[in-house]
Amino acid sequence: MTKYKNGEIWSRNEEINANNGVILGVDGGATSTSCVCMPVFRFETENCDTLPVLSRVASGCSNHNSVGEAEARDVLEQVIDEALSEARVTRDAVRAVCLAISGVNHPNDQERILNWLRKMFSGVVKLYVYNDAVAALASGTMGKLHGCVLISGTGSISYGISEDGMEARAGGGGPVLGDWGSGYGIAAQALTAVLKAHDGRGPETMLTDSILHTLGLSSPDELIGWTYADPSWARIAALVPAVVSCAEVGDETANKILLEAVEDLAACVKSVVQRLHLCGEDKSDTFPVVLVGGVLEANKKWDISNRLIGCIRREFPGAYPIRPKVEPAVGAALLACNLLARDSSEGNGVHS
Amino acid sequence: MTKYKNGEIWSRNEEINANNGVILGVDGGATSTSCVCMPVFRFETENCDTLPVLSRVASGCSNHNSVGEAEARDVLEQVIDEALSEARVTRDAVRAVCLAISGVNHPNDQERILNWLRKMFSGVVKLYVYNDAVAALASGTMGKLHGCVLISGTGSISYGISEDGMEARAGGGGPVLGDWGSGYGIAAQALTAVLKAHDGRGPETMLTDSILHTLGLSSPDELIGWTYADPSWARIAALVPAVVSCAEVGDETANKILLEAVEDLAACVKSVVQRLHLCGEDKSDTFPVVLVGGVLEANKKWDISNRLIGCIRREFPGAYPIRPKVEPAVGAALLACNLLARDSSEGNGVHS
Repeated sequence: MTKYKNGEIWSRNEEINANNGVILGVDGGATSTSCVCMPVFRFETENCDTLPVLSRVASGCSNHNSVGEAEARDVLEQVIDEALSEARVTRDAVRAVCLAISGVNHPNDQERILNWLRKMFSGVVKLYVYNDAVAALASGTMGKLHGCVLISGTGSISYGISEDGMEARAGGGGPVLGDWGSGYGIAAQALTAVLKAHDGRGPETMLTDSILHTLGLSSPDELIGWTYADPSWARIAALVPAVVSCAEVGDETANKILLEAVEDLAACVKSVVQRLHLCGEDKSDTFPVVLVGGVLEANKKWDISNRLIGCIRREFPGAYPIRPKVEPAVGAALLACNLLARDSSEGNGVHS
Repeated sequence: MTKYKNGEIWSRNEEINANNGVILGVDGGATSTSCVCMPVFRFETENCDTLPVLSRVASGCSNHNSVGEAEARDVLEQVIDEALSEARVTRDAVRAVCLAISGVNHPNDQERILNWLRKMFSGVVKLYVYNDAVAALASGTMGKLHGCVLISGTGSISYGISEDGMEARAGGGGPVLGDWGSGYGIAAQALTAVLKAHDGRGPETMLTDSILHTLGLSSPDELIGWTYADPSWARIAALVPAVVSCAEVGDETANKILLEAVEDLAACVKSVVQRLHLCGEDKSDTFPVVLVGGVLEANKKWDISNRLIGCIRREFPGAYPIRPKVEPAVGAALLACNLLARDSSEGNGVHS
């Protein structure tokens, strides 16, 4: 048996055991899928340093939009079975599963994935399927479904849920629909600015040297072939640090791109907050804004998330930022724990 | 033997023959590749209704960025050999080849494709390799390399060449780098506007009903899966008529998208015109602007190309629009004809 502390699995020989059954939390993002197995337990939000995790397994992408339905299903079944096997329990021990997967954008997606799970587990297992933004929210609120989350990694999405269970989301459309403010959005704007500077449509920018140097290219003309060479949008998003560096030394174009990204991300959050009335009637209620993803990491002089929070709090002073201490898959497991407790006491459940 | 009239191949029994050798014009666009075979001849720009075309062959995409080098090369070799076979001549009869292919963005691309051709033809054959924008220009100027062309189909690019042979281009970066003003750019903006209206970030728009109806979807949520389902950007670009229709009945969002497209396309043309000084010192010199591609077809109430020309002529009154009467592959062949005449009299050539 193992315990989870700040992203690591604790050593065995602990008091917690799986006799009361286990719960599974799955986070399926754009590039990888993680599954954690935890015993059914009651936890206090204060002691998140001592969460019991029986096992943790990672695998490839399970977004059915990206890899197709069959592969997505295979990946999910594989991480679940491996997590159970590493925890030394069988499917019979499972009491609840929370699957939070990117690509769940519509009730149809939810229903299809619920059907996969129904074939894996008996009717008494509680099954919960969400967009992966829900796991990110729960990782910040320690399993409580309330408030708003903003993810800006390769893509971007904002999701929120009110105390009475109303949901809303904004963004999360993928590369074609912009995902402005995401790593992809920022980097694609920067690449466009380099091309525009090169062909005379835009001002000179330090981004040209910085990006060409990063990619080992000698001319902006070569960028076109480079973007065509590999359709992966994570590859584009990896240019964000170059944009931030240029902005930090004062490049106007890079600054403009990041400021627009802040505004676009703030617009996603504001839309969710307003639709759910998270800020209350007089706009002063407190509510969490969970910040997740590489673009929002607070380790730079040009701090995107700090500016973003400033932008949001000017309109909603009660918004308080949370940076999750646990990973989204643990958030999904904690959520499953909470929902299981609720649905067991109420005698109902989402399942079948 | 056949002759070409307004896009059709003429019946045989004409006076022109292939005894003086033939020329090949190839246009390789984003979705297909066309090759025409014409006898070496002297033509007057006035009588473009009576161009002799010995054969015409079409095949798939030959953009090496899109389909890979091996397939691009196979497609080119195939259309060339089929065009020669249909014209009942062998490779020995070829005097000049003009290949104008999308994806030629850099001297390296040009050199690589020249090397393919050098393996196909003997050292005396004149070989010319360009971006496909050059064939589009030549199709409007009947083989003369002067002026500016703007293509806006699935993608967009502007290209120009001055009387003294200086070249410039703007745009043409493909889907990641925006190609604003292209069919893809317009449609992607429209899809984004629908998503924004749906999640509260943007105003309501008629585009929602129009696009959902066009695609047979019932909710904007389903658009995300739809854009992921097929990475082809021509599929996105096919939504342009829905955007134009909404703009025609007064939808503000659709109007804004089209007006921005006009400005973006005009910026491409202006950048090329300025860098090449096509407008002369006092900005009043006349020069052609050849307009090519589905977005610029003048058959709508909301006429993108008319507004565009207005926008360009406000700055450069000498710009005169040309809509080509022949296809780009014929433009490439006419260009090869002209360059062959020039290089033969000068005793030099681009080849090897």
